[in-house]
Amino acid sequence: MDLTDFEWRLTRPARMKANEFEREGRLKHVIFAQQFTRQLLDKLCVMADMIRELSRSKQGSDDLRRLLSHKRAMLYFTQPSTRTFLSFMAACQILGITCNEVRDPSTSSEMKRESPLDSIRMFSSYFDVIIMRSKLPDFAECCAYLMNELERQERRSVPIVNGGAGTDQHPTQALLDIYTIQRTFQFDHREHAPRSRFHDLRRRYTDLSLGPDRKVYAFCGDLGRGRTVRSLVELLSLFEDVTLYFIAPEHETLKLDVDVRARLVKAGVDLHEFDSLDATIDGVPILEKIDCLYMTRIQREHNSAQQESEIAALDLSHFRLTTDRVARMKSYAPILHPFPRDSVVQEIPTEIDQDPRAMYFRQARNGMWARAALLVHLFDVVDDLYLLYDRAFKEHGEPSPRGR
Amino acid sequence: MDLTDFEWRLTRPARMKANEFEREGRLKHVIFAQQFTRQLLDKLCVMADMIRELSRSKQGSDDLRRLLSHKRAMLYFTQPSTRTFLSFMAACQILGITCNEVRDPSTSSEMKRESPLDSIRMFSSYFDVIIMRSKLPDFAECCAYLMNELERQERRSVPIVNGGAGTDQHPTQALLDIYTIQRTFQFDHREHAPRSRFHDLRRRYTDLSLGPDRKVYAFCGDLGRGRTVRSLVELLSLFEDVTLYFIAPEHETLKLDVDVRARLVKAGVDLHEFDSLDATIDGVPILEKIDCLYMTRIQREHNSAQQESEIAALDLSHFRLTTDRVARMKSYAPILHPFPRDSVVQEIPTEIDQDPRAMYFRQARNGMWARAALLVHLFDVVDDLYLLYDRAFKEHGEPSPRGR
Amino acid sequence: MDLTDFEWRLTRPARMKANEFEREGRLKHVIFAQQFTRQLLDKLCVMADMIRELSRSKQGSDDLRRLLSHKRAMLYFTQPSTRTFLSFMAACQILGITCNEVRDPSTSSEMKRESPLDSIRMFSSYFDVIIMRSKLPDFAECCAYLMNELERQERRSVPIVNGGAGTDQHPTQALLDIYTIQRTFQFDHREHAPRSRFHDLRRRYTDLSLGPDRKVYAFCGDLGRGRTVRSLVELLSLFEDVTLYFIAPEHETLKLDVDVRARLVKAGVDLHEFDSLDATIDGVPILEKIDCLYMTRIQREHNSAQQESEIAALDLSHFRLTTDRVARMKSYAPILHPFPRDSVVQEIPTEIDQDPRAMYFRQARNGMWARAALLVHLFDVVDDLYLLYDRAFKEHGEPSPRGR
Repeated sequence: MDLTDFEWRLTRPARMKANEFEREGRLKHVIFAQQFTRQLLDKLCVMADMIRELSRSKQGSDDLRRLLSHKRAMLYFTQPSTRTFLSFMAACQILGITCNEVRDPSTSSEMKRESPLDSIRMFSSYFDVIIMRSKLPDFAECCAYLMNELERQERRSVPIVNGGAGTDQHPTQALLDIYTIQRTFQFDHREHAPRSRFHDLRRRYTDLSLGPDRKVYAFCGDLGRGRTVRSLVELLSLFEDVTLYFIAPEHETLKLDVDVRARLVKAGVDLHEFDSLDATIDGVPILEKIDCLYMTRIQREHNSAQQESEIAALDLSHFRLTTDRVARMKSYAPILHPFPRDSVVQEIPTEIDQDPRAMYFRQARNGMWARAALLVHLFDVVDDLYLLYDRAFKEHGEPSPRGR
Repeated sequence: MDLTDFEWRLTRPARMKANEFEREGRLKHVIFAQQFTRQLLDKLCVMADMIRELSRSKQGSDDLRRLLSHKRAMLYFTQPSTRTFLSFMAACQILGITCNEVRDPSTSSEMKRESPLDSIRMFSSYFDVIIMRSKLPDFAECCAYLMNELERQERRSVPIVNGGAGTDQHPTQALLDIYTIQRTFQFDHREHAPRSRFHDLRRRYTDLSLGPDRKVYAFCGDLGRGRTVRSLVELLSLFEDVTLYFIAPEHETLKLDVDVRARLVKAGVDLHEFDSLDATIDGVPILEKIDCLYMTRIQREHNSAQQESEIAALDLSHFRLTTDRVARMKSYAPILHPFPRDSVVQEIPTEIDQDPRAMYFRQARNGMWARAALLVHLFDVVDDLYLLYDRAFKEHGEPSPRGR
Repeated sequence: MDLTDFEWRLTRPARMKANEFEREGRLKHVIFAQQFTRQLLDKLCVMADMIRELSRSKQGSDDLRRLLSHKRAMLYFTQPSTRTFLSFMAACQILGITCNEVRDPSTSSEMKRESPLDSIRMFSSYFDVIIMRSKLPDFAECCAYLMNELERQERRSVPIVNGGAGTDQHPTQALLDIYTIQRTFQFDHREHAPRSRFHDLRRRYTDLSLGPDRKVYAFCGDLGRGRTVRSLVELLSLFEDVTLYFIAPEHETLKLDVDVRARLVKAGVDLHEFDSLDATIDGVPILEKIDCLYMTRIQREHNSAQQESEIAALDLSHFRLTTDRVARMKSYAPILHPFPRDSVVQEIPTEIDQDPRAMYFRQARNGMWARAALLVHLFDVVDDLYLLYDRAFKEHGEPSPRGR
């Protein structure tokens, strides 16, 4: 087996491939966002909440660390990444998974002309899951096929998790975004609190409902190259009555990809494109209609020389937040950003960080809980998590806040 | 908030700043040596001893590893460091803290123009303490202000520990030096042994007292650039009747900083400057008067071109130990060195390593215990440590060697 | 002490040196393969099996992780290595040993002119074992002498493990190879299964015996530079009636070293040299006689310019496996390779991976178990391992598969 043996499989439709990456309704590998069903997303969000709540106490943290203390992970991140890498490290550590890493793209074995698949199979000899970001396009997917093939031969095989690679998707970023949206639209800012804040809002915004359904989502910035946006809109299309606004400069590289657009339209999503945060729809500023604003950074590092000069010529002020613009937004509408943000362009200036709607740092922290939930699912210890959770809250004489 | 918002705070006197870095008499962040009071130093030394003694047995080690097993640390060391980095790693590991590291100064996020404070806030999203050494001057202090600001906003905030940066201080090195001095001047070389060795010495050296007070400390070598010396003399000035000798070449770069000198004089410290280890005072060689000798390396890597040639012209033989010089020292006087030592200049030749007064390798190991004690203090589990310790020694039917 | 103080010791015979690296019949340091006696190899193989079997259950894994949870390891790998490094990491993690690493050859301390022995002694201050691969020839051996010297002075001393360096030996690779051979020649492919497969084979191959004794081993490829081969043949010579075939191109650099050859002949080993996998002996193809085939990669990265062109001129097809060649081998004969393999030369093409005789990936995984067994031996917790093992199998009401 080598990479070329898997090439023909790469071009098949996502739904067909998704079947190969699951087993008895459970994910075996996590390669692209389309593998997440609405039902699975709901489950993972509940589990992420449970892990977060257990982590508040020393006892709960120590219990969680025993959950997967017999597992060892390989974080194979040969494409630079700090945030996703550290978030996965922390997620593993929360569950007691021992972490190992290979980050140098020029490992000694490659210099000795080892094939990439041999390297992956070496990792699978020593470790129990491979979380990866590689420069090779579609490499995570090929690794998943290799593992499936080994399983078929009754040889050792481990789960592959795509940490976001090349022009690929970034499924776990989409998962954490959904989790952040889900959590925000519960409107309970304190744990186990009655939903008082939601009831207040309900009186002011009579159309408002709980959860990600029936909301207007706006994406602003570099929508063409952000695999984050691509993965997230796939997941949002699973929810009911979502409206998507895409706000990007008039430049082919930065605008929403036509394929993505076509897929969304086909999925029946109500979508609109704008060239400024100040655009209006039927005379109403879109800023006043948005339930959730997702900002992104212009990915300068991927510019070609020509793009560089073209993009430098654009007026990016239309795609930057200001305190004035934020003031016009709904009082509950979260502002998200996959981070890092650009400290020169300042698509989100730091003075907005203090606004209660600035959710981007919590969003980062949510990544840790969401990824931990995903690992609990992959290693099939969901029941153990529920047991821990029920016991923790029974012991304290409190009603268990999250029923099964 | 960005770095410029904190600039005005940096120039305030240390005592004023120290208040912001503590809470109810306990340190919140560790930024400079002046934060340590005499009382706190005494406490930390006792705790370091307890951790060291517990570590001797498997049971004690395993108990210690449960103390902070629910915490995750970020060691952000973008300025090269092996010794301090590994010492902090080991200290964390002794207490069960899970370690994560970022050591590459050009992380991907910085290439994407993320601001340094955004990086720190990302770390604080995933981890429970940030131990750092950065090239940016005063950056650790700014990070502490950021965390205080976040705390004020009721957002997530974690302790910042300065691992020694730029021209800044190196507070934890000073702490471990004090711990080594404190321990050496107990003169009990075996655990729980009656102080027989001290009583022997007491007969020979009638002026000798226990502990760091009432001693003569000599510092030799590169006193101008060693942040280690700067931090340590701050702490020594907290003890009673200390006399400080500074032995450095006649070169502005290498001599004691005039500001530090002025501060010490103001604090009532008796200090003397010399240009050779063979200098005398009232006809008596200083080597015979010294109770503790602190050697340092000439920090060539910080030389400018001009300094390089000037320093090359100096006769450094006056600032090097030899077996002859050591032979003239008091039989109990410890020789310390913050390490690494220079194997070319040989300010301490290896033949001295076998002398019982050579304490520099124990000093390194002490860094691990002292830093662990500091983490126990920062995370407010001092009572748990005492509990462990009392239980360990009661279980063995021995009297607890360290009372509270 | 510095490196030159140890030079005279390096040239003494291995047996004389081996004494210094053991204590009361137990290894104190692991420097070269000759330290392993036949009896110790047998013990380590049993222990590796026990660790493997315990690791199958969560309970067993968690028990193992408590065995050495009070120890911290330094993996000092300044010579590039992925496989050996990760295998040692995994071995440590299985036993609960906390891992630390230094991999950058230009550490900050070296830039500050710290001597290599000072670095090692710093590591020994913080950590409980040093596992190392360095570019300095014989450096691991010198470090072992340093530790012995410190022990003599009643100072802190820790075990040194040679992770395979320069032209040195690679003792733990040899250990894992022996373990793989030992395991393969038990012919029990399922755990605790009656030896049905062996009895089948016994009928077909009437000469076949259990274990590594009385077998024909063939080594093929770059036999001159592979420290793996050098270390392994040392160990094989400890077994009874082994025959060794060496199959290498007619080139001085690639052929078996004359010293090794002489030593084997002196040890009474029956050895034969060939220039092709298709060679015959008394008219019978050697492929049909081999009980175990050990393939190796031509180590191009060590070629000088002259060797490069000379070796490029060789016909390497005689030293490559093909499905045809494998078809002629005995149905039970394992194919081993220390890996990585060369994906360009393809000494083992990937189509052979599916053959049941392809053992090279299991061999890699065996490295983890064998190294864990070695650490159990070094830290003298063999009895604790047996206790764990007996308890695990008694609890399940099964007879303990490995008696003491």
